[in-house]
Parts: sequence; C-alpha cells; structure tokens
Amino acid sequence: MTDTQPQTPTLDLVRDPRDLRKLSDAALGALSDELRAEVIDAVSRTGGHLGSSLGVVELTVALHAVFDTPRDKLIWDVGHQCYPHKVLTGRRDRIRTLRQEGGLSGFTKRDESPHDPFGAAHSSTSISAALGFAVGRDMGQPTGDSIAVIGDGSISAGMAYEALNNAGHEGRRLFVILNDNEMSIAPPTGAMSRYLSGLYSGPLGVAQKMAEGFEAALPGPIRDHARRARSLVTALPGGQGTLFEELGFSYIGPIDGHDMTQLLPVLRAARARATGPTLIHVCTVKGKGYGPAETAADRGHGVGKFEVATGAQAKARPNAPSYTKVFGQALARAAAADPAIVAVTAAMPGGTGVDLMADRFPTRVFDVGIAEQHGVTFSAGMAAAGLKPFCAIYSTFLQRGYDQVVHDVALQGLPVRFAIDRAGLVGADGPTHAGAFDIGFLSALPGMVVMAAGDEAELVHMVATAAAHDSGPIAFRYPRGEGAGVPLPETGAVLEIGRGRVLEEGDEVAILSFGAHLGECRKAARALRDQGVSVTLADARFAKPLDHALLRRLVKGHRALVTVEQGAQGGFGAMVLHWLANQGLLDGRCQLRTMTLPDRFIAQAAPDAMYAEAGLTAIDIAATALQAAGLSARGQRVLV
Amino acid sequence: MTDTQPQTPTLDLVRDPRDLRKLSDAALGALSDELRAEVIDAVSRTGGHLGSSLGVVELTVALHAVFDTPRDKLIWDVGHQCYPHKVLTGRRDRIRTLRQEGGLSGFTKRDESPHDPFGAAHSSTSISAALGFAVGRDMGQPTGDSIAVIGDGSISAGMAYEALNNAGHEGRRLFVILNDNEMSIAPPTGAMSRYLSGLYSGPLGVAQKMAEGFEAALPGPIRDHARRARSLVTALPGGQGTLFEELGFSYIGPIDGHDMTQLLPVLRAARARATGPTLIHVCTVKGKGYGPAETAADRGHGVGKFEVATGAQAKARPNAPSYTKVFGQALARAAAADPAIVAVTAAMPGGTGVDLMADRFPTRVFDVGIAEQHGVTFSAGMAAAGLKPFCAIYSTFLQRGYDQVVHDVALQGLPVRFAIDRAGLVGADGPTHAGAFDIGFLSALPGMVVMAAGDEAELVHMVATAAAHDSGPIAFRYPRGEGAGVPLPETGAVLEIGRGRVLEEGDEVAILSFGAHLGECRKAARALRDQGVSVTLADARFAKPLDHALLRRLVKGHRALVTVEQGAQGGFGAMVLHWLANQGLLDGRCQLRTMTLPDRFIAQAAPDAMYAEAGLTAIDIAATALQAAGLSARGQRVLV
Repeated sequence: MTDTQPQTPTLDLVRDPRDLRKLSDAALGALSDELRAEVIDAVSRTGGHLGSSLGVVELTVALHAVFDTPRDKLIWDVGHQCYPHKVLTGRRDRIRTLRQEGGLSGFTKRDESPHDPFGAAHSSTSISAALGFAVGRDMGQPTGDSIAVIGDGSISAGMAYEALNNAGHEGRRLFVILNDNEMSIAPPTGAMSRYLSGLYSGPLGVAQKMAEGFEAALPGPIRDHARRARSLVTALPGGQGTLFEELGFSYIGPIDGHDMTQLLPVLRAARARATGPTLIHVCTVKGKGYGPAETAADRGHGVGKFEVATGAQAKARPNAPSYTKVFGQALARAAAADPAIVAVTAAMPGGTGVDLMADRFPTRVFDVGIAEQHGVTFSAGMAAAGLKPFCAIYSTFLQRGYDQVVHDVALQGLPVRFAIDRAGLVGADGPTHAGAFDIGFLSALPGMVVMAAGDEAELVHMVATAAAHDSGPIAFRYPRGEGAGVPLPETGAVLEIGRGRVLEEGDEVAILSFGAHLGECRKAARALRDQGVSVTLADARFAKPLDHALLRRLVKGHRALVTVEQGAQGGFGAMVLHWLANQGLLDGRCQLRTMTLPDRFIAQAAPDAMYAEAGLTAIDIAATALQAAGLSARGQRVLV
Repeated sequence: MTDTQPQTPTLDLVRDPRDLRKLSDAALGALSDELRAEVIDAVSRTGGHLGSSLGVVELTVALHAVFDTPRDKLIWDVGHQCYPHKVLTGRRDRIRTLRQEGGLSGFTKRDESPHDPFGAAHSSTSISAALGFAVGRDMGQPTGDSIAVIGDGSISAGMAYEALNNAGHEGRRLFVILNDNEMSIAPPTGAMSRYLSGLYSGPLGVAQKMAEGFEAALPGPIRDHARRARSLVTALPGGQGTLFEELGFSYIGPIDGHDMTQLLPVLRAARARATGPTLIHVCTVKGKGYGPAETAADRGHGVGKFEVATGAQAKARPNAPSYTKVFGQALARAAAADPAIVAVTAAMPGGTGVDLMADRFPTRVFDVGIAEQHGVTFSAGMAAAGLKPFCAIYSTFLQRGYDQVVHDVALQGLPVRFAIDRAGLVGADGPTHAGAFDIGFLSALPGMVVMAAGDEAELVHMVATAAAHDSGPIAFRYPRGEGAGVPLPETGAVLEIGRGRVLEEGDEVAILSFGAHLGECRKAARALRDQGVSVTLADARFAKPLDHALLRRLVKGHRALVTVEQGAQGGFGAMVLHWLANQGLLDGRCQLRTMTLPDRFIAQAAPDAMYAEAGLTAIDIAATALQAAGLSARGQRVLV
C-alpha cells in the first residue's frame, strides 16, 4: 500500500471472514471504520456505487461475523453495495480494479469468489435465489443458511413480492435483511415492540431502548417512496399485523444498521432461534460516514473518480451530448407540440432522460417504480385510451416486461413507443447491463416497428417518427454515452417507415449498418476506400419492416454485403437473411456476412474495448467485407 | 333459436347493455338466471371456461347495469370469464361459435367489440390497463370510469402487485373488483364493518346483515392459496389495516357476488361516491348455479362439449398420449433415478404434467403460483445450490420470466432445465397462447442449449439429456396435444449435445426439421419422393448449438435446403442462416429457405387449420423445396 492510503491495522488482519470472526465486538467496530475508509479510497480511484456500499459497511461486517460464510449463502440484491463485502472476502488486493477492464466486477459474480453464491445486477432477485439455496440445504446439499439483503426499493418490485409470497408459503428457515435506507420516520412503537417481544423474550428491554434511541436520531422529511416501502413492513398506527407476517415471515426490527451493538446481538439471536422465514428490518443511511456522499442529493449513488478530502469528482468534458440527453430534449419538445404524449419510466427518470420532459410537464411523466411489467401494460392502457405513450426502459430491463410487450402491446397493435436506451455494450456495468437481445425479441413480433439510431441526429428524427406513428407499436434503440458529435436538427423529421438511407455509393462491397455502430462502419468504409475498394455504406434505420428495395439493390450490385449491429444474433442480420433467403436472393453472386455481438457474454471494459473484444471494430468490419468479397489481398494491406 | 335452447324472455330484450339498464332490479335477477342458462347451453356446444363464467353471471349483469359501458371501461383480467359479458354486449348471436375457427375468441379481444377495451388471456394485466384508461380520462380522452375485474389468483402475481402499488400512489379514481372465488371462511367482521361504515354511512345496517348472512352460507375447508390471497385484503383478526388501504385504496367488502341485492347497491354507491382508487371485494362461487360444475374438483374450469342434463363431457379417445403426459412420466422416472432432480411450476401442475412427479415426490415439486419471474430465479438458486431443477413453463408464459432466464440463468451458466410445453400454435386458445418466440429468445443467449422434440419418443430422450446436462442451462420445447403415436422407449437416451439425425437420405432437396413439425416434414418428403425427387429428411434436434457437420453436408449435397420450425422468424432458421452465411456456405449452389410461423398472429382454429393458415402444411413444405431447387415443374404435379 502507498502512504496515501488509509491506515487500517485491524482490517489488515482480515484476509478472510474467518479472521474477522476472531475479533471482539469492539474490534469489529474499529474494523468497520477502517473498512469504510478503505472503500472510500478505492472508489475515489475507480468510481462506482459509493453511497450504497457505505450504507452497508457495519451490516457487512456484522453478517460475516455472525454467519458462517461462505457455507452460509449471503446474497446481495442488485449487488452494487458489495464493495465492503469484496474487501472482506479475499478481494481486497484487487478492490482498486473495480469496474475496470480485467478487474473486479462492480456487482457480485459467481466466478469471482465462493463468497458470491449468486450474482446480480438487476434488482429484486435475491429472495428467489435465497429460497433456492434453502431448498438445496433442506435436500442435503452442503450449504448452510440463506441470507438475502435487499433494499427498500428492490423489495417493492413484483418479483420480490412473488418471492416473499412463496417463501412465506414454504416456511423454510431463510433470512431476508431489509436494508431500508430511505427510512425517515420511525415506525410505530406498538407494532415494533410486539414483534421484538415475540421473538426475543430475553433481550427485549435492551432492544426497546435501542429502538427508542434510534427513533430520536432519525432525520426529517418523509419521502413517498419510503412511505410505500415501509407500508410493506409496518402496520398502521395501532395495528396488529404486517404484510410480512401475513405472508408467513417473522418480523424483527427496525434496528440501526450502523450500530454494531444492535446489529450483532439481533443477528446472533435470529441465527440462534429462527425456525422459519425471518425478516430483519435494518435502517441505514446511504453514503453513511462520508460527508460529501451523505449531503449529496443522490447520497453518492454512482460517482466517478473523486478527491477524498472534498468529494470533488473529476468530470471529463464530453465532446457531444449524450444520447440520453438528446432523447430527453427531443421528447420534451414533442410533448410540447402534442398534449397526448405521455412518458413512462421504471424508476429511472434521470437515467432515461424523461426527467427533461417532467421538468416541463410533470403530470404527464409517470415513474412507476421498479415495475417494468406494469410499466409496459400501463403504457398499453394509455395507448388504448387514446394517448401517445413513450415507454422509456433500458434494453436490459425491457427483458422484464417482455411478455407485456408481446401480449398487451404487439398482439393488440397498440401504439406504444418504446425508447430503448443502453442498447449494445455499456462499459463498466458489464454483461448484466448489456442491451444485447432487444433487436431479436422485438423484431420477431408481428406489427412491431424496430428502429435504431445511427447517430444522435437520427435519434431526434426517430422520436419524431415515433410520435407520429399511431397505427401500432414502434421501438427505437440507442446506446449509452456520447453521441457522434453531429449537428442536431432543430426539429426531427418523420422518417418513412421501413426506408433506409444510402450514405456512400460504391459497387464492390456494401456495409449495411443498423444503429449506432454507423460511425465504426464509416471508418471501415474509409479504410476500404483508401485501399481502392469501392464501397457502399447504408444505414438501415429499420430492422422491421426491412427496406426490401434497398436490400435487393445491395445484393444485386455488390460482391459482398456485411450487416453490422450492436446486438446478438437473431436480430437485424437474421431478419435480412430470412428475407433474402426466401426471395431466392442468396444466389451466391453476393456474399453475405452478419456481424453481431458474439455468442458469449463480454466482460466489463471501456465500450470501445468491449467492441474490440466482440470483434466489431472498423478493422474487423473492413476485413470481413474484404474476405467475403474475395478481396483479401487488398485487405491485408488495409489491416497493416 | 332451436327449441332445445333455454327459454330466455328477459335476455331476449337485451341486445346491448343500454337495454339492460332499463330493467328493474328484480328483472335483472331474472336476467341473470336466463344468462346463466344461455352460457351453460352455449358452452355445452363449444367447450370452454365454464366455471369462471358461471361465477360472474350476476357480477357481469350488475356491472353493466350500474356502469355506463362501453364509455366506462370494463376490463376482465385473463378474460376467460367473459362469456356472460359477450352475451350481453351484442355477441349473443355468435356465442355458440366460442373458440371455434372464425368464431368468437374465448377471451376478451379489442377488435371484437368496443365492449372489450383491453384484451387479455395472460393473467394479472387488468389493473395496469385500467390505470392507463384512468389517466386517459383525466387527460381529456373520451372515456369514463375504469373497472378491472381480477381474480384472487391473478391478483397474487407480481405484476398485479406492481399495478396496485402504482395505482394507489397515483390516487386516481379507479375500480378494482376482486373476484374472490376461493373464499371459504368469512373475513373478520370488525375490519369489514369498519370499511363499510367508512364509505357507506347510509346503508351500513343493511350491508352488515347481508354480510352476516353471507358468512353463514359459505362452505368448508380453507385452502392455502385462498388464505394467501385473502391476506392481501383483510387484516389479521382484530387488526385495523389492509394492504390495499396501505397502498392508498379504499376497501369495500366482502359482498356476496351472487346476490343482486348486495351487488347493485354497493356498486351504485361506489360509483356515486368514490374519489380515488377503490377495491370492491366480491365473493363468488366458481361454477355457480350448475351442479356438475359446482361439484367438480376444478369447478368446471375448462370443459369440453357436454350434455347439459348430466354434465357428462364427450371425451375423444386420443390416438396417442399427450406430450404433456409423456413429459410428466419421463420426469417422474428421472426423479426416481436422481434425488437431486426437482421441478418448478407456476400454477400449472396439471397443465405441465409435473403433477405426475408430485404424486411420487411431493416435496420435490414446487408450485410457486402465478409467479414466473420468481419461478425461474428460484430454479436458478436451486441449481446454484447443487440441485437439478426442471422449470416447466409454457412457451407463452416463459415470456414473463425472460429477464430471469437471461440474467439469473444464462449469464451465470446455471444448469436450469426448461421444459417448454405449448410450443407452437395451440388451437382454441388462439394467438395469446401461441408459443411462437421461445426459439429465438433462447437461442440468442450465450451458453443456452435449445432442443425441440420431433415426436414424443424424442421428448423422452430430451428429458434424459436435460437431466444429464449439468454444465449449463438447457431447454426443450414440445407442442400441445397428442404425440405422433410412435413407440415410447422404456428409458430415454442421453443425446449428444448439438448433434442432429438424418432420417432419410437423398441428394436433391433437404428438409431440416426442428421440433414437432417433423411429422409434416415426413409427409412432405414422401410427397416429393412420390414425384421422383430425391429427398433428405433430417431432424436438427438442436437449434443451439447447431450441428455444423450436418449443415455443411446438407448444403454441399443438395440443390435446396428448407428449414422448418413451429416458431417465429429469428429462431432456428435464422441461426442456420447466420452460421452458413458467416462460413461462406451461402454460395448459391444450394438454395436456402426458412419456413417459420408467418409475421402475423394466427387466429384460433384447430391446430392443423392454424398451421394451414400459417403456410406450414406438407404441401407448402414440398412446394417450397421444389421451387427453391428449381424443380417446380415436378412440383406442380405434387400440388395437384
């Protein structure tokens, strides 16, 4: 360690959770302080999910101190709060590689450590997985207890509710730690003390005092989100039951998740006595113990590299506005022009850019929470009622609402506009967040229009096109990050449905791009042209419906046609091949190649590095075109 | 009408809900009796969802009497209980065409009537859609109230929970009718009377008496499923709050859903006074008013044609065991041989055949309820714990768990076995239940093995193959209905992963089948051979990984290769085309054709008729092969 790193004498003793279990309770407190400093220092160098990790430092220490991990299975929901867990479970030496190419994942990951029994990144999966381990244990597998740690936002999703419902029904011993970090008023003492007394006849007096002190220490205003989450666990004032109890869970809490003198005895007692599903309600403060995070509006949820002393983040100045911002601005303009336009987001108003519309038209933007299934069908209902909904969901999360896209939108031909951000590879968030499959799973649906933006100006046109398209569903995808830097049109043009565009004309090889790899395709075309190859470059704009005239022209007029997309096989290239095959146009005079994401998951790195790993650089494209056209001799010069 | 049909003097006056609103309350009671008789008579001729429809006869009449349909939007969850609704809304003249080719859908359907504002067939979508209409109304669209009618099973699904959570947050006027037909004991009088008195200061005394009478009339044993559903709406004994209230709903009920003197005043009062989201808890009896349905174990849930006097159903004697039964038996045998095998179903133990395993190993079969998201990830958790889960979900419902297949199973490479019944077109249940998209949405996933059974003997082998495949996820699909009648092996053979089989050898055209259209492909091959065409017939068995050696041999040795599958474009044929294109094997010497489901939804009919409509008969296959091979002259003779 360099001398700029924090002094961590206790943490230095811990190479594994077994070391930690040898420490006194007092030493565990000291360990927590050092662990917090270590996480702050590490994330200051890598960026990442700081606030969530700082909120669970004590909880992480306490769980590893009390439970027999990794035999006991500790499952972090989402997994973005796992940095302290990684430090304690043999990965401290790599913690400053978080989210970097070749480094530790920013989430839990099974192949990184036996301490990550079930990886995550999407929310609300932990209780289902923990129940699976509990069944495994009960059927004789060599596994101990199951512990799911889930936040108040994640537990509000339908999937978590399904899991609670089933876990309560099963009645197996299972721990759910509700990490409630938006708790802002104390729950009713009546309900709390009843539950505590039910499970802890011994330490009740202590627990009551702890809780009273905790209540007094809590901060101010009530947030609606927190209120709804809390309504799951606490009865009305004077009430007797909680949903968890009705579902078959024992309920313990709330306890202060930053006080080891509460965490350790409660977890120890629960471990010693629980016989069935048990929920422990732990209140934490996101960003805890680091001033700049505690005072930030988002509590340091996701940060770039920063200076530890001040929290000041080094922000790279972008070269072009992000696709997200371009979408948000175009949507807001469209909404200003058409009062029937509404927008839906599933807990991502900022991430999707619909907050820019909400700033101007707050009553027309709906944040449904982590509820993609509902969000899609709610959009379908609004479309059926005559409105024009834009349903803005990241590609990877739209997978959560797929049946609703099929059954409620496509089958009924309802004009829901799907704005699909984070299409393709996304960088540091890695394979769990890749938007790889939407082209295929949408293009398979009858009546769906599927577009992808070649650059940010195209995105503006596609917003206008979607707004105008009222005869059925339409989707448009665009990547994370900065646009290409092209000039933005003042207003978007309504594109002709199913019509691509030719950007450069040639007669030897044709490159047909679908989406934001257009820039890379331009480079490939330039490299080919530099070598004397005559190239046509076209932007398909639509994977569905296809531009049949364009396809016919490309295969008739070239020795090779290469399709390029930022998505998996079974998408745009597949649609092109299907049509050409069934028209009898695969007659061998024009060789076809489809360049897609490869048939493997691509680990985190900078997006460009991920696309290089995927074999989708300009050089790859040029080489593929040359090889297909039988011009490899010239190609070898290109590749030098 | 023929004289075998029931006498319906009051019903004959009702051509539209407006006619119904002119009737006295007493006449509405008579109307209900006649409507029930009409539905029984109609379903006796068509088969269908009898029990659910009989349970809501009075509710249907009361809703149309009180609300201004179709301006008010009445949305039936699932929609299988809509037969009385169809009779009252201008479709009586076609009610005896239910579920038949060219007839009425067995579900609600937007293009059938303005009285079906939002179609359904999958569960738990109604509250989301109703909220969409409520927003539309509040934004000036010409629509009145929104009313979702949802059963106690459907409201337990995560999606419905997401919608309740959002609807309560929005606070808009919206009615949710909880049609609780598994209610077997009355809820606590205290909670009920408090809610009634809160909303109805006038008629409270009456309501209380009604409720007491209702309580006394209810039948016996408590079912766990009903208990859990009820726990959503009723507080614990002596308690004060319900989940609905905590979510922001007003709660009214429970009321007897077969007593017009309760239904009409409560609905009228609710319509007159509600200002926000309102839940009306209505208790009904599935199969009500028809003895054979009321006394059947499934309360006449789904019936074939039957004799009205006795309820005796005409059962066609099958020629071969169903794929479902073959799967269930093979699974039970595999489970007997390997104690690590477990099975998961989402509320479909009988439909999927896992009940046959449950009969022998009840503790190893998990019915998670209508909860496909949880079911998939729960399976992933069990796989991570070392068990061998078979996750048995219909193709169409696996769409509900797609993100979990991607994120929890495929990304982690966990060996979950997906048993996918109802693949392809399914007959009377129509397009909402078609299993059209799974080949594509699974084959796009790295590491997934995707199989389809050519016949029921192949299905036995695939169960054995899946049981033995422990290195990653594997899926196998098979259709609804009877097998091909081939002999069943005593024990399944473990197939080599990614290896197809050649059934007939030739050298002019090749037909490559994936899945249960193999029988039709055999017929096509025979027809071609009868015309002197030399045909190779192969069964791919695997869409992923592909049998590269087989593909190479087929394209090298034939003038045409036709792929055939019971699924949408972007599936097996697309995978074949991708590989051939990128190997440079699409050189024009062998013409390729991909035969998939067409790019439109196929309306209900007998499965054979649906496949004819889809262009997938043996004749279609033979003609396609001939045309592709340039042998159409011979083909014309075949087609005569």
